[in-house]
Amino acid sequence: MSEELHGNCLVAQSGGPTSVINSSLAGVVTEALNHECIEEIYGGLNGVQGILTEQIVDLAAETQQNIRGLRYTPGAALGTCRYKLRSDADFDRVLEVFKAHNIRYFFYAGGNDSQDTADKISKLAQKKGYELRVIGVPKTIDNDLVTTDHTPGYGSVIKYISTSIREIACDNAGMGQHDLVQVVEVMGRSAGWIAAGATLAKNKDNPGSAPHLIYLPEVPFSKEKYIEDVRRVLQKEKFCLVVVGEGLIDAEGNYVSTDSQTADAFGHSQLGGAGEFLRGLAEENLSVKARSIKLGMAQRAAVHCASQADSDEAFMAGQAAVKAAIAGETDKMVILVRGESEGYVCETALAPLSEIANGVKLLPESWINEDGVSMNYNFTKYALPLIQGEVQVPFENGMPQYIELKKIRAERLLPTYTLET
Amino acid sequence: MSEELHGNCLVAQSGGPTSVINSSLAGVVTEALNHECIEEIYGGLNGVQGILTEQIVDLAAETQQNIRGLRYTPGAALGTCRYKLRSDADFDRVLEVFKAHNIRYFFYAGGNDSQDTADKISKLAQKKGYELRVIGVPKTIDNDLVTTDHTPGYGSVIKYISTSIREIACDNAGMGQHDLVQVVEVMGRSAGWIAAGATLAKNKDNPGSAPHLIYLPEVPFSKEKYIEDVRRVLQKEKFCLVVVGEGLIDAEGNYVSTDSQTADAFGHSQLGGAGEFLRGLAEENLSVKARSIKLGMAQRAAVHCASQADSDEAFMAGQAAVKAAIAGETDKMVILVRGESEGYVCETALAPLSEIANGVKLLPESWINEDGVSMNYNFTKYALPLIQGEVQVPFENGMPQYIELKKIRAERLLPTYTLET
Repeated sequence: MSEELHGNCLVAQSGGPTSVINSSLAGVVTEALNHECIEEIYGGLNGVQGILTEQIVDLAAETQQNIRGLRYTPGAALGTCRYKLRSDADFDRVLEVFKAHNIRYFFYAGGNDSQDTADKISKLAQKKGYELRVIGVPKTIDNDLVTTDHTPGYGSVIKYISTSIREIACDNAGMGQHDLVQVVEVMGRSAGWIAAGATLAKNKDNPGSAPHLIYLPEVPFSKEKYIEDVRRVLQKEKFCLVVVGEGLIDAEGNYVSTDSQTADAFGHSQLGGAGEFLRGLAEENLSVKARSIKLGMAQRAAVHCASQADSDEAFMAGQAAVKAAIAGETDKMVILVRGESEGYVCETALAPLSEIANGVKLLPESWINEDGVSMNYNFTKYALPLIQGEVQVPFENGMPQYIELKKIRAERLLPTYTLET
Repeated sequence: MSEELHGNCLVAQSGGPTSVINSSLAGVVTEALNHECIEEIYGGLNGVQGILTEQIVDLAAETQQNIRGLRYTPGAALGTCRYKLRSDADFDRVLEVFKAHNIRYFFYAGGNDSQDTADKISKLAQKKGYELRVIGVPKTIDNDLVTTDHTPGYGSVIKYISTSIREIACDNAGMGQHDLVQVVEVMGRSAGWIAAGATLAKNKDNPGSAPHLIYLPEVPFSKEKYIEDVRRVLQKEKFCLVVVGEGLIDAEGNYVSTDSQTADAFGHSQLGGAGEFLRGLAEENLSVKARSIKLGMAQRAAVHCASQADSDEAFMAGQAAVKAAIAGETDKMVILVRGESEGYVCETALAPLSEIANGVKLLPESWINEDGVSMNYNFTKYALPLIQGEVQVPFENGMPQYIELKKIRAERLLPTYTLET
């Protein structure tokens, strides 16, 4: 165990929220309270953006109900950002803020871009001789972070999608006696993890149950094959439930969706429309009724149908980040490791931030069936433990009661900083 | 009390399913078992279509777990249809099938088109001197049936939508610091009941909470006003959650959505695309990020977030239909009546089928605020009791366990009948 480092900690959230990102925040706060060497427990509002502009809140001053409520409240309670630290001035400012508030522990919950940011902050602190321990907390519904078995947020999104698809399948089955194509578009920019997860909706006693066809960004899309796939399913089942990841590409590597494709701050295209595109293709080429559903942001916020296993692991990842930092670790991200035993066991470990930054974990090809539109047993074996248990959201007067942090501001100690836009 | 009528009963389901249509089916079956004058309890598959083609199943032969499971299983367990009885031959055939199977009680769960069908069957039986008691069971997420205070199915759809919107609002709030427009398209062909119901997502302590703008089919859409509405909300809140009913029309009475508009068997247009249309308008005219969500059929199948009050009332409506028929009533539909007392009490009564058939109940104008895009207290007072309580769906191995009826076929007694197509 390394020497005790006394000072304050700061936790922030980044990127697109998940159903359980606040559970990780609760894990960090809860664990930080256990350690005397951590004095103030600060939250940075809107990720690095709030650090740059010194928007810091006192998390220890929140009520215990609020910290408990984080375990079932969607969205990012501290706010996130997609702002990218873009200049030496930005990085120097972060360090300046950390110094001013004696931040010695920095916990950053986010995906690969965010871990890249954390890595750079950590390296700069080392270079400047400022003792700072930086630990990343994995977070993304996309499940595309390398080194970790899976990411908090993924289990909940696929539980919600699979539940919805099983319900839609009941609905469609009841409409019977006429051909119907139902396309469900789900998130997933560059990897098909989310779309693949829809396979859990299948009734294991009925191989003909929905979803019938899953189109993954990993498998180049062919219009002709799609039409044949749908025709084949309709002949047998009278209805065809298609799941498509928003990042579907054709053989030339172009997105199939025809939507406007503006890029975000990290240069990613903003996708949407793949579902409507496949709906149209089916209707035009097969003369059948076709409908589309786009769950959009609802899927990453649906705590009312979140996985308890996922929520617990997110909490555990937050705790583990604090424990690791206290033990002297820095410049690492918490990863989830699956035990070797027969039953599912999830433990935490650490991996260097630099390994996670900007890596993308694709679906293993060997988990996709030869038909290219369905998942095999290996995938199900991997994914099923991640959706176990149901988060119990308190309802009052018919509606879920989510909490809102008080966000009591810490005093500003530095001159105003203007963000580059 | 009229003379006891001995014979068999037949229950069928029609039109688009709801989260609680099977709860009404459970109510019919459960109540029918209590009455000795009802001998066989039959289900007709796929509404009148299955009656015409003599696809009749023995519901008394189902397990009790299955009948109980109907209370939390989405879709129409017996199947529905949108087939319209279109000739004297069709109507004569229905009567022929009823006679062959000694059907003396006919319960039909459906919306206004279906109640119209039930009415015509009832009148034909009277004309032909065949003693038949016909009682409709109200069913539609659209809540647009006249004479009844509300319809089973409505409470659940608005509970799910409001929950989803509250969650999406958490997600959007957490994205902070940049303008975002989120459009959520919901069902509702000719009345804005469903879109209006989204107002329940509002946090009563925060008038600025989502949904910010609700576009109803009752209020002609103006592009200019929409853009100003969104601009105003963005200025104040930094994000704007828009709810739009699929049946939104402009001042000339044309649907604003640009989707293909094929008509169904009843001549209704198939809508979709209003949400994407409003999203595009905001993005193009305000230079802000805008996203859309289309919940589609998921919203009418989401039993995992259904209202217990709604499910209980659906069950009660099924029971009431049987009780009324036993008591000698015919050619009526069960309606839900709100008690006059302070607290919410829901009772059943009866109204003539002919009154319900083809009537449409619009949102009272006085429940819409002057701004045309929000609902006032009268609406909330009306709708809030309908979403109370949460249906508990049994989950197993991480997924909801819905039941499937065995559908044991009754013997066919008549020659084959060919449907007109």
